[in-house]
Amino acid sequence: MSEPEGRGAAGAPARLSLNQATTRSWSVAEAAAACARAGIRHIGLWREHVAEAGLEAAARLVREAGLSVSSLCRGGFFPATDAAGRARRAADNRRAIDEAAALGTGTLVLVCGGLPEGSRDVDGAREQVADAIAALVPYAQACGVRLGIEPMHPMFCADRSVITTVGQALDLAESFPADAVGVIVDAYHVWWDPLVHAGIARAAGRIVSFQVSDWVTPLPAGALTGRAPMGDGCIELRRLREAVDAAGYDGPIEIEIFNERLWRSPGDGLLADLITRYRIHVA
Amino acid sequence: MSEPEGRGAAGAPARLSLNQATTRSWSVAEAAAACARAGIRHIGLWREHVAEAGLEAAARLVREAGLSVSSLCRGGFFPATDAAGRARRAADNRRAIDEAAALGTGTLVLVCGGLPEGSRDVDGAREQVADAIAALVPYAQACGVRLGIEPMHPMFCADRSVITTVGQALDLAESFPADAVGVIVDAYHVWWDPLVHAGIARAAGRIVSFQVSDWVTPLPAGALTGRAPMGDGCIELRRLREAVDAAGYDGPIEIEIFNERLWRSPGDGLLADLITRYRIHVA
Repeated sequence: MSEPEGRGAAGAPARLSLNQATTRSWSVAEAAAACARAGIRHIGLWREHVAEAGLEAAARLVREAGLSVSSLCRGGFFPATDAAGRARRAADNRRAIDEAAALGTGTLVLVCGGLPEGSRDVDGAREQVADAIAALVPYAQACGVRLGIEPMHPMFCADRSVITTVGQALDLAESFPADAVGVIVDAYHVWWDPLVHAGIARAAGRIVSFQVSDWVTPLPAGALTGRAPMGDGCIELRRLREAVDAAGYDGPIEIEIFNERLWRSPGDGLLADLITRYRIHVA
Repeated sequence: MSEPEGRGAAGAPARLSLNQATTRSWSVAEAAAACARAGIRHIGLWREHVAEAGLEAAARLVREAGLSVSSLCRGGFFPATDAAGRARRAADNRRAIDEAAALGTGTLVLVCGGLPEGSRDVDGAREQVADAIAALVPYAQACGVRLGIEPMHPMFCADRSVITTVGQALDLAESFPADAVGVIVDAYHVWWDPLVHAGIARAAGRIVSFQVSDWVTPLPAGALTGRAPMGDGCIELRRLREAVDAAGYDGPIEIEIFNERLWRSPGDGLLADLITRYRIHVA
C-alpha cells in the first residue's frame, strides 16, 4: 500500500473506491457528490452514466469532487458472428479508450464477451477475444490507457465472458507488455477457484484493479444481481485483499455490488454502511 | 466403446442411460418400465426414489426391466461444522455405498458439499472433503463400489460442492487407487473450463461417468433447474463425448437434466425426444 489505510478526510479508508454499479440509480454528479461527502477518494465510472452526464462534464464533476477515477467500465464483448460485428465492437472499444483517457483513468475494464449468437465454439470465441485485444493494444498504449481483462464467474461464460479464471486472463495478458494489459481481480468472480491464490501470485505486476462484494445463495433469476454487501456472504475478502497486496497491487479497491435492493435505496447511509463493512471485512 | 452405438432393442443407443433426475416425478417402477419400452439399457438411480420403492424392490424392478444401474446419486456433502456432523455424514455415505452395492452398480456419485453453515473457509472445506473420502475408501473398496467425485459448476461452490473442476477432482482422486476413486464428467458443470480438455485427457482411467444436458441462459432463480435438453444450449457435447472416449471411458452416458418443465411432463414422448437429441448432439 502506498499510504496507510486510515481515515480519509471524512472517514473513508484511503484505497476505498465506489464503483458506480453499486449505486446505479445515481448520476455521475450524485455519485461524485456523495463520495465527497463520505470522504471517498476514488470512483469507478460506467460508460452509460458518463454518456448521460456528457464526457467532459463527467470528467469535470469527478475532478471538482476531488476524486480519482479508478477505472472505466467497460470495454470488451469482442466475439461476434461476422467481421462487420467484430469491427463495430473494435470501434466501440476504441471509443471506450478515448473516454477513459478523457476521464483521466489509466484502466479500462474489459468484460470480454460470451459466445456469439447461436455458436457453441467456446475456444473460437476465446481466439476472437485474443485477436481483438491484440488489435486494440497499440491504440490503448498510444492513449495511455491500460486494458484490464476481467475474468468473470463461469456462470456468465455463455453470455458475458469466455474468460473465467485469473490464470486464463493472465495467459492472455502475458502476450502483451505489462503496462498495456493487466487483469482485474473481482472477488465475486474468482473466489471459488481452487487456483485463485496461485493465479493472483502469478499476476504480480499485472493486477490493475481489485473489486469486492460478497457471494450469497440462492442466486436470483438471471444471476446478475445476486451480489451482496461485504460480510453478508462467504467470500474470504480479507485473504484475497492480502493476496493482491502481496502481488504488489496498491491501488484503489472498488466496491462493486450489483444488487436490486441497493439500487432502490442509494444514499449517504448506504455509503456509510459500505465503508464500515469495508473496514471490517476487507481493509 | 465396447459395442457400436447403434440401435438398442427398441431404438435407444447402447450407451444411453436415463438419470432419474430427468424424470423426477416418476417412481423407480415407472422409470424402469419407460426405459424398457424405449429400449434404454441403463438407468442412473437417486437414493430418495430408491428409498420410496424400497431397496430390494428397486433392485428387482430395474433387473426385471433388463436395465443396468449406471450410477447411484448421491453420496457426499462432507463438510460440517463439527465432528458429530461429520460423523453423521460419514455414516450416511456408508449407507449410500451399501445401497449402491445392493443395486448392483459400481459407481456412487459424490457431490462433495459446500461450505459449512456460516463458514468462509473454502480451503478448510476442501480438506474436510479429502479427509472424508480417505476415511470412506476402505469401506467402498470392501463393497466393490467406486466413488465418483463430481466437480460441480462454480455457481454451486458455496452450497453444493467446493470441488469445481475436473483437474481439482482429479488431484483429489489421484490420492487413491484408480479402482477406488474416479471422477464424474458432467458436461453442464465443466464445459466453461478453459482447462477441461486437459483435465479429461489427464483423467484417463479415472472417468466413472459421463453426463449430458445443455446450458441455456438466463438461469432461473436458484440456478439448480436451469439445465436444458441437449441441443437447446451452447455446450459442445459431442466434442466432450469424444474427449471422454479418447480418455478410455466406454461406459454409459447419462442424460441428467434438472428442468421444471420436463419434471411436469415426463412420458414416453419425452424419452423419444431425448433419444433423438442424444443421437444428434452426443453420439
